[in-house]
Amino acid sequence: MYRIGIDLGGTHIAVGIVDDTNRIVAAKSIPTVAQNGVAALLDDIAVCVRDTVASGGLTMADCAGAGIGVPGVCDTACGVVRFAHNIGWDGVPVSEELRQRLGLPVHFANDADCAALGEVVAGAAKDCDGALMITLGTGVGGGFVVGGRIWSGHHGLGGEFGHMCIQPGGAPCSCGRRGCWEAYASVTALIHQAQEAAQAHPDSLLNRVQPLSGKTIFDAAAAGDAAAQAVTAQYAVYVGVGIVNYINVLFPEVVLLGGGVAGAGEALLTPVRAYVKAHTYVEDAAALPEIRAAALGSDAGVIGAAALVR
Amino acid sequence: MYRIGIDLGGTHIAVGIVDDTNRIVAAKSIPTVAQNGVAALLDDIAVCVRDTVASGGLTMADCAGAGIGVPGVCDTACGVVRFAHNIGWDGVPVSEELRQRLGLPVHFANDADCAALGEVVAGAAKDCDGALMITLGTGVGGGFVVGGRIWSGHHGLGGEFGHMCIQPGGAPCSCGRRGCWEAYASVTALIHQAQEAAQAHPDSLLNRVQPLSGKTIFDAAAAGDAAAQAVTAQYAVYVGVGIVNYINVLFPEVVLLGGGVAGAGEALLTPVRAYVKAHTYVEDAAALPEIRAAALGSDAGVIGAAALVR
Repeated sequence: MYRIGIDLGGTHIAVGIVDDTNRIVAAKSIPTVAQNGVAALLDDIAVCVRDTVASGGLTMADCAGAGIGVPGVCDTACGVVRFAHNIGWDGVPVSEELRQRLGLPVHFANDADCAALGEVVAGAAKDCDGALMITLGTGVGGGFVVGGRIWSGHHGLGGEFGHMCIQPGGAPCSCGRRGCWEAYASVTALIHQAQEAAQAHPDSLLNRVQPLSGKTIFDAAAAGDAAAQAVTAQYAVYVGVGIVNYINVLFPEVVLLGGGVAGAGEALLTPVRAYVKAHTYVEDAAALPEIRAAALGSDAGVIGAAALVR
Repeated sequence: MYRIGIDLGGTHIAVGIVDDTNRIVAAKSIPTVAQNGVAALLDDIAVCVRDTVASGGLTMADCAGAGIGVPGVCDTACGVVRFAHNIGWDGVPVSEELRQRLGLPVHFANDADCAALGEVVAGAAKDCDGALMITLGTGVGGGFVVGGRIWSGHHGLGGEFGHMCIQPGGAPCSCGRRGCWEAYASVTALIHQAQEAAQAHPDSLLNRVQPLSGKTIFDAAAAGDAAAQAVTAQYAVYVGVGIVNYINVLFPEVVLLGGGVAGAGEALLTPVRAYVKAHTYVEDAAALPEIRAAALGSDAGVIGAAALVR
């Protein structure tokens, strides 16, 4: 049997048909149009699912069920999505609504959690006992999979990995508090750190790369710019501080880094690993979780959503 | 059937026979004598278990199995206790050794995790979906139970709840690092904070209570001493900072506070709850985890160890 994975994002909806080996055998993507209301968006999803199934030469009867990743709080105990601000959803019983439209059982979970689950079933954390995926982007998100199951807290209210306070009274965060990890380790924060360095060092390459982004900042460091190197070295420490905290408490078998800046690869991973090795509570370096780049990119969300179907 | 719970501590061994309703029907305690080696200590445990069973008018055939909580890293995947410094154990296959001595299946887990599990099966977190127990004592320990299962990390290496860094470069911690939560929220830290306040305020009651302890410091605050009140108010903030971080990420249904200072009751719980309410990422106060005092005291470890027998 096949399973249907749906990644509902703020800008587009990705649908994939996934086989028993967690390979995507057919895929489609359509824009997310939220302004016409919940029912219209659910209709769009259902049409896209049926189109994708057909494009793979399959019928709905070939599919055991569907899973959907949603950018909000997924209260699976109560069966509703809450606080999905990007798409204007609050209190939407997404499984029941899509079951009626598709005639199949539908499961749902937070999109970041689906991405983590996708990496566990088919990516860089395959078959790991406890996997933490951290996504460094506009904000800092994450997902924790333990024993093959997503843990996202009571009524789906946990998993705010970016909002661990690492510096009481510290840098202002998008959430209105201060000192959150996100305020230091997001790409947004990295760009802010690079802007400050550019101002302090008028000769730095950072003043000539436009726009500043995770990629251009790491590129400037790779080109030998001292100010950019200082920024990326300090940024790796900020990333490391949070990872150390999560290792001390959760101790997953593997920690994955995803999001745009993870594309910097070893330029980020190597100093983060060094910081973690020097600062984790457990001193046996051989026992430490591996820190790797996520492997599946945007497919992780679709494959993980499909993996919700058991 | 009955189950045997064993709480192996650094100073004494507590054994309890637990019935199907998680009540202790017979109990004994003997001193922990570690210096004669691993085999002698295991022999002591086995004798104490048989004595306790007999004292309850039972035979070993009435017992389905035994569980033991051990003050060290419990690598259940490999079947060995590691790094139990208090009792000098490293690499001890405790289940197998006790199975040979008792003729029953034996399960094991970290002692703090057993205490958390005990509170979940029979105490202040009964039947909760995700329970975090934090113990504020000489250090800060904790246990996290999710879906009725202890999560202590890959090979049992996680669960170091006191060693989340909340202030990079901050107060020195017993682990050799700086800024750990334990360095602010342990009773040891509270006493240190009170000593500094006593020196700064020669008229404070804190200079006349001996010895300074969690109880005497909170008693001085209750008696109206302004310096002691400032210390306990700041201490509640330190406790709150860590609890907020764990709620944002783990979002258990309930957070339990145990350890000596939790005996202060509402004098600690009320300001901690206020801090958490004001600082947690989720703003819906009705949805927040309840913060309660642990209920079972030292019985939690025995009842939780027995609950390892399924």
